Amino acid sequence: MAKTNRGCMYMGPHDVQVKDIPYPKLSLDSTSSPVASERQKRDCQHGVILKVVTTNICGSDQHMVRGRTSLPGGHMILGHEITGEVVEAGRDVEYVKVGDLCSVPFNIACGRCAACKRGDTGICLNTNPARAGAAYGYVDMGGWIGGQAEYVMVPYADFNLLKFPDKKKAMEKIRDLTLLSDIFPTGYHGAVSAGVQPGSTVYVAGAGPVGLACACSCQLLGASVVIVGDSNKERLAQAEAFGCKTINVRDSDDIQKQIAAIIGGAGEVDSAIDCVGFEAHGCGHDHSEQPAAVLNDCMKATRAGGKVGIPGLYVTEDPGAKEKAAKTGNLSVRLGLGWAKSLSFYTGQTPVMKYHNYLMMAILNDKIKIADAVNVKVIGLDEAPAAYKAFDQGAAVKYVIDPHNMTGLVGKAQESPLKKARK
Amino acid sequence: MAKTNRGCMYMGPHDVQVKDIPYPKLSLDSTSSPVASERQKRDCQHGVILKVVTTNICGSDQHMVRGRTSLPGGHMILGHEITGEVVEAGRDVEYVKVGDLCSVPFNIACGRCAACKRGDTGICLNTNPARAGAAYGYVDMGGWIGGQAEYVMVPYADFNLLKFPDKKKAMEKIRDLTLLSDIFPTGYHGAVSAGVQPGSTVYVAGAGPVGLACACSCQLLGASVVIVGDSNKERLAQAEAFGCKTINVRDSDDIQKQIAAIIGGAGEVDSAIDCVGFEAHGCGHDHSEQPAAVLNDCMKATRAGGKVGIPGLYVTEDPGAKEKAAKTGNLSVRLGLGWAKSLSFYTGQTPVMKYHNYLMMAILNDKIKIADAVNVKVIGLDEAPAAYKAFDQGAAVKYVIDPHNMTGLVGKAQESPLKKARK
Amino acid sequence: MAKTNRGCMYMGPHDVQVKDIPYPKLSLDSTSSPVASERQKRDCQHGVILKVVTTNICGSDQHMVRGRTSLPGGHMILGHEITGEVVEAGRDVEYVKVGDLCSVPFNIACGRCAACKRGDTGICLNTNPARAGAAYGYVDMGGWIGGQAEYVMVPYADFNLLKFPDKKKAMEKIRDLTLLSDIFPTGYHGAVSAGVQPGSTVYVAGAGPVGLACACSCQLLGASVVIVGDSNKERLAQAEAFGCKTINVRDSDDIQKQIAAIIGGAGEVDSAIDCVGFEAHGCGHDHSEQPAAVLNDCMKATRAGGKVGIPGLYVTEDPGAKEKAAKTGNLSVRLGLGWAKSLSFYTGQTPVMKYHNYLMMAILNDKIKIADAVNVKVIGLDEAPAAYKAFDQGAAVKYVIDPHNMTGLVGKAQESPLKKARK
Amino acid sequence: MAKTNRGCMYMGPHDVQVKDIPYPKLSLDSTSSPVASERQKRDCQHGVILKVVTTNICGSDQHMVRGRTSLPGGHMILGHEITGEVVEAGRDVEYVKVGDLCSVPFNIACGRCAACKRGDTGICLNTNPARAGAAYGYVDMGGWIGGQAEYVMVPYADFNLLKFPDKKKAMEKIRDLTLLSDIFPTGYHGAVSAGVQPGSTVYVAGAGPVGLACACSCQLLGASVVIVGDSNKERLAQAEAFGCKTINVRDSDDIQKQIAAIIGGAGEVDSAIDCVGFEAHGCGHDHSEQPAAVLNDCMKATRAGGKVGIPGLYVTEDPGAKEKAAKTGNLSVRLGLGWAKSLSFYTGQTPVMKYHNYLMMAILNDKIKIADAVNVKVIGLDEAPAAYKAFDQGAAVKYVIDPHNMTGLVGKAQESPLKKARK
Repeated sequence: MAKTNRGCMYMGPHDVQVKDIPYPKLSLDSTSSPVASERQKRDCQHGVILKVVTTNICGSDQHMVRGRTSLPGGHMILGHEITGEVVEAGRDVEYVKVGDLCSVPFNIACGRCAACKRGDTGICLNTNPARAGAAYGYVDMGGWIGGQAEYVMVPYADFNLLKFPDKKKAMEKIRDLTLLSDIFPTGYHGAVSAGVQPGSTVYVAGAGPVGLACACSCQLLGASVVIVGDSNKERLAQAEAFGCKTINVRDSDDIQKQIAAIIGGAGEVDSAIDCVGFEAHGCGHDHSEQPAAVLNDCMKATRAGGKVGIPGLYVTEDPGAKEKAAKTGNLSVRLGLGWAKSLSFYTGQTPVMKYHNYLMMAILNDKIKIADAVNVKVIGLDEAPAAYKAFDQGAAVKYVIDPHNMTGLVGKAQESPLKKARK
Repeated sequence: MAKTNRGCMYMGPHDVQVKDIPYPKLSLDSTSSPVASERQKRDCQHGVILKVVTTNICGSDQHMVRGRTSLPGGHMILGHEITGEVVEAGRDVEYVKVGDLCSVPFNIACGRCAACKRGDTGICLNTNPARAGAAYGYVDMGGWIGGQAEYVMVPYADFNLLKFPDKKKAMEKIRDLTLLSDIFPTGYHGAVSAGVQPGSTVYVAGAGPVGLACACSCQLLGASVVIVGDSNKERLAQAEAFGCKTINVRDSDDIQKQIAAIIGGAGEVDSAIDCVGFEAHGCGHDHSEQPAAVLNDCMKATRAGGKVGIPGLYVTEDPGAKEKAAKTGNLSVRLGLGWAKSLSFYTGQTPVMKYHNYLMMAILNDKIKIADAVNVKVIGLDEAPAAYKAFDQGAAVKYVIDPHNMTGLVGKAQESPLKKARK
Repeated sequence: MAKTNRGCMYMGPHDVQVKDIPYPKLSLDSTSSPVASERQKRDCQHGVILKVVTTNICGSDQHMVRGRTSLPGGHMILGHEITGEVVEAGRDVEYVKVGDLCSVPFNIACGRCAACKRGDTGICLNTNPARAGAAYGYVDMGGWIGGQAEYVMVPYADFNLLKFPDKKKAMEKIRDLTLLSDIFPTGYHGAVSAGVQPGSTVYVAGAGPVGLACACSCQLLGASVVIVGDSNKERLAQAEAFGCKTINVRDSDDIQKQIAAIIGGAGEVDSAIDCVGFEAHGCGHDHSEQPAAVLNDCMKATRAGGKVGIPGLYVTEDPGAKEKAAKTGNLSVRLGLGWAKSLSFYTGQTPVMKYHNYLMMAILNDKIKIADAVNVKVIGLDEAPAAYKAFDQGAAVKYVIDPHNMTGLVGKAQESPLKKARK
Repeated sequence: MAKTNRGCMYMGPHDVQVKDIPYPKLSLDSTSSPVASERQKRDCQHGVILKVVTTNICGSDQHMVRGRTSLPGGHMILGHEITGEVVEAGRDVEYVKVGDLCSVPFNIACGRCAACKRGDTGICLNTNPARAGAAYGYVDMGGWIGGQAEYVMVPYADFNLLKFPDKKKAMEKIRDLTLLSDIFPTGYHGAVSAGVQPGSTVYVAGAGPVGLACACSCQLLGASVVIVGDSNKERLAQAEAFGCKTINVRDSDDIQKQIAAIIGGAGEVDSAIDCVGFEAHGCGHDHSEQPAAVLNDCMKATRAGGKVGIPGLYVTEDPGAKEKAAKTGNLSVRLGLGWAKSLSFYTGQTPVMKYHNYLMMAILNDKIKIADAVNVKVIGLDEAPAAYKAFDQGAAVKYVIDPHNMTGLVGKAQESPLKKARK
């Protein structure tokens, strides 16, 4: 019987549809991937085919869906946050076995280049001919097919996959474990690169899923005070629900005064993390789009000698930008302020593999309730287009697609765990 | 009116007595310190006199009190874990003010030598003419008078003291904050140097106050599983009370098997911390004194590529040792085992100043309940001799002396907070 | 007999004059410093008075002398690069002695605040009431009197001073050792923060004294290829003279192509260091002032996952800037490019004390010829005004003022050591 | 035509012979490796077959050849220091190509386990079923066939091999590049783990090839003074020839006094590296075998707060040891001395891959003359048995076997480059 597959395709701005698509092959070329070029062609006997258990909608998917990138409609299957079960393994796969339940880092890494050998899997030199770094289902990231689908192919599987040690126990915590493919490590990486440690005071800019995952990671790292800033009240409430302090950035254009109201002193924290990126808006009265607004606020918010982690995405080209300079990726940064404070800055895609096994251990041993923090909601594949829309409108929810209803949660009432807790 | 003072003096093996002693002076010489030599003499206008609020009995005091060192009786005021209020400041003190409530690191550091400038305040090159590193009230550590007394002098006060930002709030958490002078940073340093991070599995050897402080620090650092080993059942129960797993080292001589029973696999953890030191005993059947037994167990317990923190004290000379080689500090270490596993090892006095302000923030913001973890009991000065005896007999208690009953807790029933919690 | 003093005073744009000034006092207030405010007032019994042996003219002095800052004329004695002999020590000075020959870090640090305890002496919290970080003879840096004079006061002397172990040997290498107060550590810090290590390929932007010191530091750190970029041919020749490769940034606006011509591949190095700062100019055809031009080039030049050190000064306000945004310190940075490459960025004043003793050892043991690399020329105090002018016009010389001719070199022919070597 | 092969076989204590052996296969099992067990069996389509260009005799080979291990005679082809040209590539090899000239790290690493992903290729969890870490031609290291042969198989080739960018240029520097497979990175790792940096003072214990490579690495790292200790005068002369200071450990049993005679002060260095390991002998009068003698000396030699790198091999079992405890790997270590000085210790096999590409760059750009430092002598395969004997007798030579005379140096007079330089 022919194997079938269905997945979420980007059809054009604000238009995502579930389509019949080919069942994955252990190769990458124009017959297996509609967006793969000749240069990307390769045999993938080092890969496996996964039955997707869960696959999450990410804020960075929205950049494409809002039409802020050069991606044409009708070609790309979306989705780079994937957890699945191995149903077929290539000839050269040695350690991963059929039946293994695994988390897939959103970075596609070869495990053989200089960057991968250093642990910099976010900038693998081999998996994307156009530039360093590849991902599933993302424009300009190597032509690999996305995972918001029933089945997906994962190359270099022995290197990329994180196997969960106990399948049954993993399924019990799948709402948390599904976040290991991207936003938990991404938020955590932002916190780690900003130097968060036990006792730190921290400012997290942005209360979307990455911001909330970052704030929760700061708590895991022992931060004494975690302050989250956003203008979306529902998302701020979500942050408060797990013990964060919050700032509504619309209320003032003086971030230091807002921080001082919480921790006193000069209103400066040890570490700041920009979880917003280039689609930033001004604070206070002027909330027009200002691509460097959040980064500049992070500099203001950080004490001398502090560090600023920047997991929020900044792009080399932004055709949809309001400012002319921003179209070519030039932002108006208050560098002199950062210099006077001896700050350092850390950018780039998170190398998920540096963190995912330790963070899995934290989940499996109940050290963190990351799914509750970001308010996971499990949905079916056909609900994905509506979820894209709701998320775009600011829902304080992390949507997790379960294409086969392996969790048993699809279609069931899933009251926000935090609301439940507050009752 | 003449100012008076009283303090705990070491009179000989197993004999500590409260004696009238001179009120502190801002100097160190043979008139101000009975154990200070001509070489140690210095003017201390950089110092302050503290009214002692709390001062703790430490396991390392016991090495002296058990007669395991060369300290003669009748000279030394004990005590290096001190918290107090400034009542007099020397002429050259610029930033600390009379009335400030401060934690005193047990390391006495000048803040001016190459070691202090690197942050290595545990090996200050100026405060002890005999060797690197000084402390209050300790044999061979520079002749400085101990703080288990009503008043004590703290030199280089601008450098050494940690001022609590809010005096009233600090007094409310004084049971926790008193641990900042030594065992909390010491346990924490052991954990940090062993590489403990979110998700780590950890083995802590020893459930005395430092071991418990270390275990609790590992939790603050986000460890997924913290296993504590000891042979004292009461202390192990204390460790379990705040969420640790435990191993009774008398039950087996195969530490890997005991660990595997908890976390599975080969029974190896990411990090191990030796919180026992040279007064170690064998495990399993043979629990005679074996100075390297705990260190060798830590090597067995640690996975390849792991780190071993060694905050437990090892001495250069141990006249009371059973083994001949151990008398001169030579221990029988299974170095080949460590080498085959590519382990690294971190020794020495903890440089408290590297950590105390961040750890204070963690206490003040309720990120850690360190006093409960180590089972603090506040006593009066006159109860100290009895406390030394009880502690030597293995009481799972951290004794905190409050010479002026400024906490109001002296003489009051203080049920173990953990027992209370379990009711 | 009254003690006299003379020093270099900033009188207005492009106008430096040698003036009679008061002999230093062990205090800082409006009677001892014409630019010190009431808030800055303090007794300095922790200080010493130095007879200045050498004091260097720095590129950052030029920012003031060119009138690019808010400094009014007629008040400030310039000079923050100082080496001298102790002629008087305050009451609270314990370890530095009269007669000691010492290097003075340009950072003025108290040694007692949280920043100093971390080793971040460039952002001391106590020595400048206006903001973190103080320096001698510099606008907005705490009101401390500069050292381009016969005598100068150095506060917190036990903490700040680096004593040379052997005075006679030190005088033999004084041309090198004089660079320990600023540009050698500053160039080195740029290299270290950019991750330079044995085998690295490096791009150093700027061939002024800091750029040359940085390039030479990269060699000391074992870099395999050091490429220096500038538009001043004499300075580029200086860089070539000690083994660097060079790029004339006027020749092209494609820095990657220029680098590829030297090392091949994509024209990207492991590490880049911006030794120019905010007074940057465009490359290729358009060499107008473009404050972010050098930083953007550094991003282009660096490989994915690389680091960019930024010792070059960026200011919070630049009233003399051409661009309107730049007047308030807003620069047009290609942040998206850096993000796509996962770069990190390190800014701020160099904490000299982290490095100066190790770098002194490198000089004393002939591991580096730093004076030759930056082309030191020793001059008398009265030659300083002319030297300021020559340096402003791009002389490839590092001017070192010897106010008492203690080196015996003043007025003597000092052929460029590199020219000599090439003969 | 059948492909043939010849290699160096361990026949018994002090007996190495060149034997006809099978041509390599792309597999590991009992038919391809006489010492591989069923558990080690695997298909190696990820591997390549190399024509060996150079393969070096290592000090650790001598442990086997002296009969200090459990290795039986007549089975093992020796050799883990290999450089070669790819002549056949397995099906799963994607990036390495036939014709590539490559350095082979002596560690055999899968590139897919948790240790390899962390960069800890010295303790790969997959390539040796018996314990963490594998190597070519070594007892208990996974059963892989050694490379002192004409041809050898290298598994996981895309991960393990370092390709030289320019074959012709590489052949010109092959005497240096051949050292990248082990002793250069091993000596360098010892230095790096001991914290050697520009300006450091260093003590290197042992002037065999690893000790000399370490000393030369310390210079590359910018150390100000490098002191090498040994009792072999020829080897000490070799160390002096490239600028090291030396100590003959037979001359005194007070290492601090010997160091003080060179650098003054207390005779303590910043960093010490033990390049001897368990076959150590006492210093001064008593030069009997004392397995911990060198390590204890390293502790004495290191200043408080310093680090001790231990690349020298310590074994878990040493049946040939003189001391009873040492037979089971228990050594008499002066741990108390290290603890009093707050030392840290770094052990284990060097993960070559962390360093080899940067060190290759240092060689190719003439930053280091490592072959001259260790006195490389190129010999033919048939000369290997004699070279083993000469090396065992203390020749200050690093023997490099060139089985096909691809260097053209076999049989030619090769005056010691250092002797030549001194003429």
